[in-house]
Amino acid sequence: MIKTDILIIGAGPTGLFTVFEAGLLKLKCHLIDALPQPGGQCSEIYPKKPIYDIPAFPEILAGDLVDNLMEQIKPFEAGFTLGERAETLEKQTDGSYIVTTNKGTKHQAPVVVIAGGLGSFEPRKPPIENIQDFEDKGVAYIIKDPEVYRDKKVVIAGGGDSALDWAIYLTDVASEVSLVHRRNEFRGALDSVEKASELAKLGKIKLFTEAQVKKLYGDEQLEAVVVKHNDSDKGESYLEVDNFIPLFGLSPKLGPIGNWGLEIEKNAIKVNNAKDYQTNLPGVFAIGDVNTYEGKLKLILSGFHEAAIMCQYAYQLINPGKRYVMKYTTVGGVEGFDGTKKEAKKEVVQSIA
Amino acid sequence: MIKTDILIIGAGPTGLFTVFEAGLLKLKCHLIDALPQPGGQCSEIYPKKPIYDIPAFPEILAGDLVDNLMEQIKPFEAGFTLGERAETLEKQTDGSYIVTTNKGTKHQAPVVVIAGGLGSFEPRKPPIENIQDFEDKGVAYIIKDPEVYRDKKVVIAGGGDSALDWAIYLTDVASEVSLVHRRNEFRGALDSVEKASELAKLGKIKLFTEAQVKKLYGDEQLEAVVVKHNDSDKGESYLEVDNFIPLFGLSPKLGPIGNWGLEIEKNAIKVNNAKDYQTNLPGVFAIGDVNTYEGKLKLILSGFHEAAIMCQYAYQLINPGKRYVMKYTTVGGVEGFDGTKKEAKKEVVQSIA
Ligand SMILES: Cc1cc2nc3c(=O)[nH]c(=O)nc-3n(C[C@H](O)[C@H](O)[C@H](O)COP(=O)(O)OP(=O)(O)OC[C@H]3O[C@@H](n4cnc5c(N)ncnc54)[C@H](O)[C@@H]3O)c2cc1C
Ligand SMILES: Cc1cc2nc3c(=O)[nH]c(=O)nc-3n(C[C@H](O)[C@H](O)[C@H](O)COP(=O)(O)OP(=O)(O)OC[C@H]3O[C@@H](n4cnc5c(N)ncnc54)[C@H](O)[C@@H]3O)c2cc1C
Repeated sequence: MIKTDILIIGAGPTGLFTVFEAGLLKLKCHLIDALPQPGGQCSEIYPKKPIYDIPAFPEILAGDLVDNLMEQIKPFEAGFTLGERAETLEKQTDGSYIVTTNKGTKHQAPVVVIAGGLGSFEPRKPPIENIQDFEDKGVAYIIKDPEVYRDKKVVIAGGGDSALDWAIYLTDVASEVSLVHRRNEFRGALDSVEKASELAKLGKIKLFTEAQVKKLYGDEQLEAVVVKHNDSDKGESYLEVDNFIPLFGLSPKLGPIGNWGLEIEKNAIKVNNAKDYQTNLPGVFAIGDVNTYEGKLKLILSGFHEAAIMCQYAYQLINPGKRYVMKYTTVGGVEGFDGTKKEAKKEVVQSIA
Repeated sequence: MIKTDILIIGAGPTGLFTVFEAGLLKLKCHLIDALPQPGGQCSEIYPKKPIYDIPAFPEILAGDLVDNLMEQIKPFEAGFTLGERAETLEKQTDGSYIVTTNKGTKHQAPVVVIAGGLGSFEPRKPPIENIQDFEDKGVAYIIKDPEVYRDKKVVIAGGGDSALDWAIYLTDVASEVSLVHRRNEFRGALDSVEKASELAKLGKIKLFTEAQVKKLYGDEQLEAVVVKHNDSDKGESYLEVDNFIPLFGLSPKLGPIGNWGLEIEKNAIKVNNAKDYQTNLPGVFAIGDVNTYEGKLKLILSGFHEAAIMCQYAYQLINPGKRYVMKYTTVGGVEGFDGTKKEAKKEVVQSIA
């Protein structure tokens, strides 16, 4: 059982910044995310695109925003359960909650913060009849650790940035990389398209365009795939492979959170924005894109403010009766749980004569 | 009469970021501030100190935060009335407001946003009997344009960073710089104290410590000051000078805003935080440090969120019945009023075979 002060579901920008605000109040956090990496939409959907409305950044790439947040929260040593979906929320008699993931990992905390954005990112799966039979047995929809593919024969399917970028990356890892896409044109960043094109010409990526993976074969573990060309004259190719990785994008689904007894409106969680962003369940807060209230804006900067306010109330729940006196970071500095301390240079008081 | 869509009182971080959020909605802004420069507390009180809780900046100097905001809002060509205090607010029959400053400058807008922080920064004045007689006639409490002191004989009073920094700066501009401080020790950044010390040794700053300016002489314009030493044995010094600049710091005062019929609580303006941060006067909003509501945090990041929400409602007031569909800046780009356009690089769609 993982125990913490504040359990955060969702490691998008909102969940990440919560770690910082909680840390200032000496509260420890643990985050759960269905994705293998932190950053939510910023990391998964548009890491290489600029955002223009983060205050005091005239321009910042979404991926850099996430890197900066990770750096900012580093002193507060948050725990992470990545690649797992929070599945159930159970109230305990002492008022705390236990959250269990789809892989059975259990977490307990007096305060739960849902920073789940548009929901848990779930892969779009291709319509191949027996694909479930091979999940985690050669078929994966997300690449968590590319080393798994070392010296393997890999087929990637898809025509966007992730298919391109992983095909490129794996040419240095896998023994064979095939890329299957149902159209002739790929859609991605110019440099990814160019790089993939070059590797295809060198034969390092075996290209199947206007084609789709239609069948999977294997005894327990995946052993081969059948690639069918759109043009039936071209027929089918039978490829002996170890892995099939369809990268058709992830789409967020509110999912299990919808069954936790929370008040849901427009596919989001209703909160009390006049006070603390708490939901109808005491001790359960919802911040960032996942919540809704009159006039809600699904902006990153709003999640930041909501996190700061929410942490003040979480402090009161966790330390009943204790009064917290807010200090500006400039004045009080930042004391990490890792022993680091940042502080402004002190003024000197000295004679100049 | 200066006319604009949104008139902002206070050019601190909150007021500045409002220009950006309004600009995204194609609304023009004009700002009034009592200080000669934008940035509010960040510029006036702690420009060289680090802030640690601006989201995605593990550390940023308050002065750099202001510079970044100025850069971010540049495309939206806001107007500025600086060095003037907003004195009166008058509702017009068409529902708009006219705001007049202490210098008589008039501004008109359908929406007024008070982002006045802790109030208008007013100088702390030394207790010298006839000092008012020489205000703007040789006596100034804020340096707006140092060129005014070119080839002049200047006396600065004070023992903190601004007294030190301006005394240092003016050695290159004025013909004579004297620095008067009632103690022997100065309090400031180490490099300022060291630099001033060096200039004093070189005779470029005439130093009077454990001393105070006690009398001013002149016929219309200031002509001389009397410096009295704490140790009466040392007597008085009579200095012929053109300018006397007491820099004893500025302290914020809610001031005239307190008389505008706004609901005031704990020296701040009560707003409806469950909705739009509007005050009890329709069309008048209050955001940032100047407002109050249950759980209010006087943090810079909160002013940013409040500005974003407030602008959405201002849009509805200014464009009644028109529906605004929010677009992410990443998706829609940023179109400046100056003709500039920032946008994400488009994806390419291309064959790689
Ligand atoms: C193309 C694009 C451009 C954008 N441009 C801008 C912009 O310019 N400015 C701006 O402010 N915003 C922009 N946004 C929106 C911005 O990305 C979101 O507001 C922001 O990501 C919300 O952050 P969050 O942390 O609340 O949620 P998310 O970033 O959505 O993160 C939520 C995380 O929670 C996880 N999660 C949810 N449920 C579970 C569960 N049950 N178990 C485990 N994990 C779960 C998800 O996997 C996800 O990683 C843009 C969005 C897109 C898609
Ligand atoms: C030493 C110090 C350290 C701090 N550290 C942090 C920190 O680490 N993190 C953090 O988030 N915050 C910190 N703060 C607080 C932060 O600076 C404020 O929250 C922020 O400046 C508020 O911004 P604002 O724009 O609302 O108001 P302000 O910055 O106060 O600006 C308001 C402006 O309005 C002007 N004004 C008011 N009334 C009038 C009028 N009638 N006419 C004309 N002009 C008027 C004033 O002159 C002023 O320039 C710190 C503050 C101080 C003093």
